[in-house]
Amino acid sequence: MIKEVLGSFIANLKTAKNYPFILVIATTDVSLIPGITVAGASPELTHFTPAADAEFLVLGKCKVINTVPITPDGIPTPALVTRASLSFTKVTKLVVNAGSKILPKIPFIDIGGKPGGDIRKYSLDLETTERIIENSTLLGEELSNTYDLLVIGESIPAGTTTAMAVLQGLGYNAIDKVSSASPTNPKELKRKVVLDALKNLPSNTLGKIAKLADPMLISVAGISLGFKGKILLAGGTQMTAAAAIIKEFNKEKLKDIAIGTTKWIVKDKCSDIISLAKQVGVSLIYADLDFSISKHKGIRVYEEGYVKEGVGAGGASILAMINGANNEDIVRKVDDMYSELLISKN
Amino acid sequence: MIKEVLGSFIANLKTAKNYPFILVIATTDVSLIPGITVAGASPELTHFTPAADAEFLVLGKCKVINTVPITPDGIPTPALVTRASLSFTKVTKLVVNAGSKILPKIPFIDIGGKPGGDIRKYSLDLETTERIIENSTLLGEELSNTYDLLVIGESIPAGTTTAMAVLQGLGYNAIDKVSSASPTNPKELKRKVVLDALKNLPSNTLGKIAKLADPMLISVAGISLGFKGKILLAGGTQMTAAAAIIKEFNKEKLKDIAIGTTKWIVKDKCSDIISLAKQVGVSLIYADLDFSISKHKGIRVYEEGYVKEGVGAGGASILAMINGANNEDIVRKVDDMYSELLISKN
Repeated sequence: MIKEVLGSFIANLKTAKNYPFILVIATTDVSLIPGITVAGASPELTHFTPAADAEFLVLGKCKVINTVPITPDGIPTPALVTRASLSFTKVTKLVVNAGSKILPKIPFIDIGGKPGGDIRKYSLDLETTERIIENSTLLGEELSNTYDLLVIGESIPAGTTTAMAVLQGLGYNAIDKVSSASPTNPKELKRKVVLDALKNLPSNTLGKIAKLADPMLISVAGISLGFKGKILLAGGTQMTAAAAIIKEFNKEKLKDIAIGTTKWIVKDKCSDIISLAKQVGVSLIYADLDFSISKHKGIRVYEEGYVKEGVGAGGASILAMINGANNEDIVRKVDDMYSELLISKN
Repeated sequence: MIKEVLGSFIANLKTAKNYPFILVIATTDVSLIPGITVAGASPELTHFTPAADAEFLVLGKCKVINTVPITPDGIPTPALVTRASLSFTKVTKLVVNAGSKILPKIPFIDIGGKPGGDIRKYSLDLETTERIIENSTLLGEELSNTYDLLVIGESIPAGTTTAMAVLQGLGYNAIDKVSSASPTNPKELKRKVVLDALKNLPSNTLGKIAKLADPMLISVAGISLGFKGKILLAGGTQMTAAAAIIKEFNKEKLKDIAIGTTKWIVKDKCSDIISLAKQVGVSLIYADLDFSISKHKGIRVYEEGYVKEGVGAGGASILAMINGANNEDIVRKVDDMYSELLISKN
């Protein structure tokens, strides 16, 4: 079941004629800060996660690493949920590289970005920031000739920290409100990094974004600004930061946009996406998933706050549901794919 | 008017619901051989032509060079005809970089290719050749979820020489049968380069393609092999070589494919696309353009055998005609765009 939290967007999904699933990937050196993210088995491996997620999404296997990305606890990437969910719908999957240290070994759209640096120093130079916005906007414009809806997911380890920084830097109250792929959100560490990053902040919008944002956030905002139809931002609290960037450039655009996420993000007690979406003024819907019926422990733990969202899992589940699949169908498909992975691993 | 030369394909264009215009770009060091191509004001500048063509197609202006690509005589790129023609239809323009020395400063799809080397030595290593085929096939497969027709154009200076080499190497009689962007086709030079390239040729198909083909030909073949619908190969004699590669991998696929070109290619006395298309067994249609009514000399000289085709100009004109434009509409639009270019230059 799809549930509406803020605004009304589900009707737009039901009437959409043609949409792709776009995965925007990037890396930020913020993910190298020990303890800040679990999206990778170690800080160094976090730089491989976006490329591996993109490969799994498109191919059903990874090339840049031998297995799918996992947390240090061994919980698999939400790309599994995304791929399983998209099997219920007929969509073209497009990967956009907004700036990744490791490139996926599949076709991807290059928008001339660069990997993000540590936001305590500076994430991106102004020229790269402008180029990401410009090229992503152009891409969004071109896609308007084919599609009337875009579904945009993301993969970038430590992206919730850069999101918190962007939101706070743009004047929202975001401290402690972003989520985490871990059930024990490392709030103190994130807060410290963000407060450090906010020191000596440029006063103009572009300077703030260049210093604080990761390339994914800027590219997602750019694609959305260029696209003429409706947009489902498939992600968690990070997407409120993408929406905030969109709002800086075109406030009117927000009425065409909703964030589509998972139950685990909306119900999370360690973050507050409802507050963030309200502050920014963007619609919010979610897929009411229940993974407690899964055969696999690695999947059941989603119910305990592990992973929660990523690689557009929530948005992809919403698409599956729009196309007639229910929770049980999705879980069965996720279970089957996970079983195959376990077999191919052994 | 669209004319059918071999097979019957026009009906497929009329019933197509949704198609993009894909421009596959690449460079080959064959273009550095003095006198072999006029697709660039000098041999060194030929490496800028594909990127500049892609930029002009998408943006209406170039970024990697200050003006549009021109021949040493000052005749403008056929990208002008393509952009003018596509203004009559609503299509997404996708640029695929199959291997270019100079990258376009716009969004493009990267398929992990490399620029082609001099075919008298070796164009590409086997690993790169396989990667281009594999990733291009994957791209074609993904596009099948959105589109029922692909229109694929190309930009690669000296591409007719590599096309002649591929055709000859795969067993066709192609010597002196490929066209040229110059009214005085440098046939002797091309023949000499191709005969040199054919020495010490590997005996297996992949080896032959790796040695002789440019990255564009391999990528166009790969995309076509992966795509499930109909395909219009928008180009001249080069596209018979792309069709020949497709045939090596999947002979059945040819029935879904036609080459769509210009009158100037079909009527050219210095080349023989009809013979090549017949030998390979691919359908052939063309746009019956007449540029003698243009206001500009640089455009009227198309009637004298300058340029003839490129950047999918023929296929784009065919799309314009399918969408109701006639020759006069297209020429008027080309003239307007050329006037704007002359104004912005002065």
